[in-house]
Amino acid sequence: MATTGTDMSRMREMNQLSIVGALRGNPPSTVTELASRSGLSRPAVDVLVQSLVADGWAEVEEPGASSVVGRPARRYRFRATAGHVLGIDIGVHKILVILSDLEGNLVRTVRHPAAPEAAPAERLAAVDRVVDEVLASAGMAAGDIWAVTVGVTGPVDRSGRTSLSSPLPGWSEADPAAHLGTRFSCPVQVENDCKLAAVAERWRGVAQDADDIVYLLAGLRTGAGLILDGTLRRGHGGAAGEIGALKAVRWLTAPDHLQSCPGMPATAAEGEAAAWVFQAARDGDRDARTAVRRYTRDLAVGVAALVLALDPQVVVYGGGFSRSADVVLGPLHRELTKHCLRMPELRASTLGDESVALGAVRLALDEVDSRLLSDGLAAPTAPRR
Amino acid sequence: MATTGTDMSRMREMNQLSIVGALRGNPPSTVTELASRSGLSRPAVDVLVQSLVADGWAEVEEPGASSVVGRPARRYRFRATAGHVLGIDIGVHKILVILSDLEGNLVRTVRHPAAPEAAPAERLAAVDRVVDEVLASAGMAAGDIWAVTVGVTGPVDRSGRTSLSSPLPGWSEADPAAHLGTRFSCPVQVENDCKLAAVAERWRGVAQDADDIVYLLAGLRTGAGLILDGTLRRGHGGAAGEIGALKAVRWLTAPDHLQSCPGMPATAAEGEAAAWVFQAARDGDRDARTAVRRYTRDLAVGVAALVLALDPQVVVYGGGFSRSADVVLGPLHRELTKHCLRMPELRASTLGDESVALGAVRLALDEVDSRLLSDGLAAPTAPRR
Repeated sequence: MATTGTDMSRMREMNQLSIVGALRGNPPSTVTELASRSGLSRPAVDVLVQSLVADGWAEVEEPGASSVVGRPARRYRFRATAGHVLGIDIGVHKILVILSDLEGNLVRTVRHPAAPEAAPAERLAAVDRVVDEVLASAGMAAGDIWAVTVGVTGPVDRSGRTSLSSPLPGWSEADPAAHLGTRFSCPVQVENDCKLAAVAERWRGVAQDADDIVYLLAGLRTGAGLILDGTLRRGHGGAAGEIGALKAVRWLTAPDHLQSCPGMPATAAEGEAAAWVFQAARDGDRDARTAVRRYTRDLAVGVAALVLALDPQVVVYGGGFSRSADVVLGPLHRELTKHCLRMPELRASTLGDESVALGAVRLALDEVDSRLLSDGLAAPTAPRR
Repeated sequence: MATTGTDMSRMREMNQLSIVGALRGNPPSTVTELASRSGLSRPAVDVLVQSLVADGWAEVEEPGASSVVGRPARRYRFRATAGHVLGIDIGVHKILVILSDLEGNLVRTVRHPAAPEAAPAERLAAVDRVVDEVLASAGMAAGDIWAVTVGVTGPVDRSGRTSLSSPLPGWSEADPAAHLGTRFSCPVQVENDCKLAAVAERWRGVAQDADDIVYLLAGLRTGAGLILDGTLRRGHGGAAGEIGALKAVRWLTAPDHLQSCPGMPATAAEGEAAAWVFQAARDGDRDARTAVRRYTRDLAVGVAALVLALDPQVVVYGGGFSRSADVVLGPLHRELTKHCLRMPELRASTLGDESVALGAVRLALDEVDSRLLSDGLAAPTAPRR
């Protein structure tokens, strides 16, 4: 069969993608190194990498003064700033937006407080303001963004809505994908916050070595995100991880134990009460330790249900309460031992409250990568939906 | 680069495998049909299929008398009887062994009752007797078997033991793989009964269309098997699906509601009581209907935990109680609606008590297929461990 022009062009594109793959995640590389990584010939790599530089996908690392005798070989690197993505966490108490380049280098992180009682339009207007601030401070426009992922609380259906349940007032009617779609022409996806935080732990957190992960988003509400065989478990209708909705597993009421405790200042606000209890427990206060033990005893029922159902390698304790993992993990481990046939490792998240936005960045980067594979390498511009 | 003899031989093997793939699961096929399915040339297919016939992997379908003018084209089929596999269900009350050819045609099914209190050595001796009977009645020897899969109750670790828990007396010390390994030189694997039954439902049962399945093995004990994204979920330590061990989800006690009911004959044995209650409920007996409702109310807690955690497409009600699905599924559906955010489809198994052995046959056939892919097509003989 004769090779057609289309075949040739597709083959060239595949070879370019293989050079991009050989550049990414590596230090600046010589043509010889790229040839060895890609399996292509040195002369072919030379031509391909020149065209990637011309198109804006790669750049030359100018050789610095070095002690090497003779002219050092020219080195190339992936031009990570060719495009950028946004990870947006629309939380109950905060809006957090992270701007990242194509290599996952975080360029800007901006956070504004949000009012728990804010209506959807108000909350989305606040999102717009944070996005404006991020883009302006980075000197960018909406057209420079290649993919946007938004994290929200509650199970997210295929349309990006949380119609089944949401703790945000009126939010089940909100359509954040459509709202952001009016200013961004690139793909905009919406995902559940616990799922994104789980993705973040496997990407940059404490579960990078694990393929089977139960992630707990622990705070005044408790949620779960599941990664099984290395893949985020979304569920047939996007509602995986919602075990906390079942009364019998006690997540609905577990944090109540942290809301009152003898000796707590009457002035402590809802969000501060738990922090006070955790600190008092850390300081050895007996009542506070009892409150934390009751919290972990109830929390452990739902965790044990997930562990017994899925037999994960790792359980990650994340979310707002993970700052107090030092007083939670011990009692939680003891409680789980009572219920479970096989104990997983229990680890505390270190990503703090950026985990949801960070997972959103990761999914947005995945979206860019899948577009590269399916659409190939035109000169770098934002993809369109 | 010159093509070496090894390359040639490997390429020939890959082409033979592709012809085997084109033969399997299809009606007897002509060389032209095989060429079209495999993408290989007609003359190449002709040579390959002749050698498959010579080796015993394929056979000629002799053309019958037909009304077609001229000599009909010779047709070939995969020789499904080139090898056989065994699926063995070592249950509490029965030993069930199924002999299947390489296409999954069931050649023999033999069942013996077992004593719940039998010690492991006694139970394994009973397995030997049923295997003897199956092989003898099919005129076969152990060397004719290419793979054996054994289903047992309790979570199975990598060594094939159920050291974490088992309802069979002394069974946590038993090593069925080693026992069967003394007579079979082919691969012998051990797997949990609920997991095998789940596999059977997706292969030949009511969940053939689904990739996300929660399977319930419902009887005097309740167990679960999970298929997620089309893959059997084993768990990091083989203990996935064991949610029933958690008291809070009520599976440990749910069947107790079916063990006593006003009007039940005092003579009803443990295994017969539930059947009596189901029949009485079917006949409209008010007390029996209450008992069934209480059973489903408790059962639903654990099922809801799995549904909320995993958001499956289908929940299959299988196991011994599935014969009474007609009186269970209605109340179970109503109870689940109270707990779940998104309702999956609820279906009754139709595989009866052969599901575990049938799933064992499927895993044994998968084992044979993976050996074919890795070891290639020598003349058909049983693989060795």
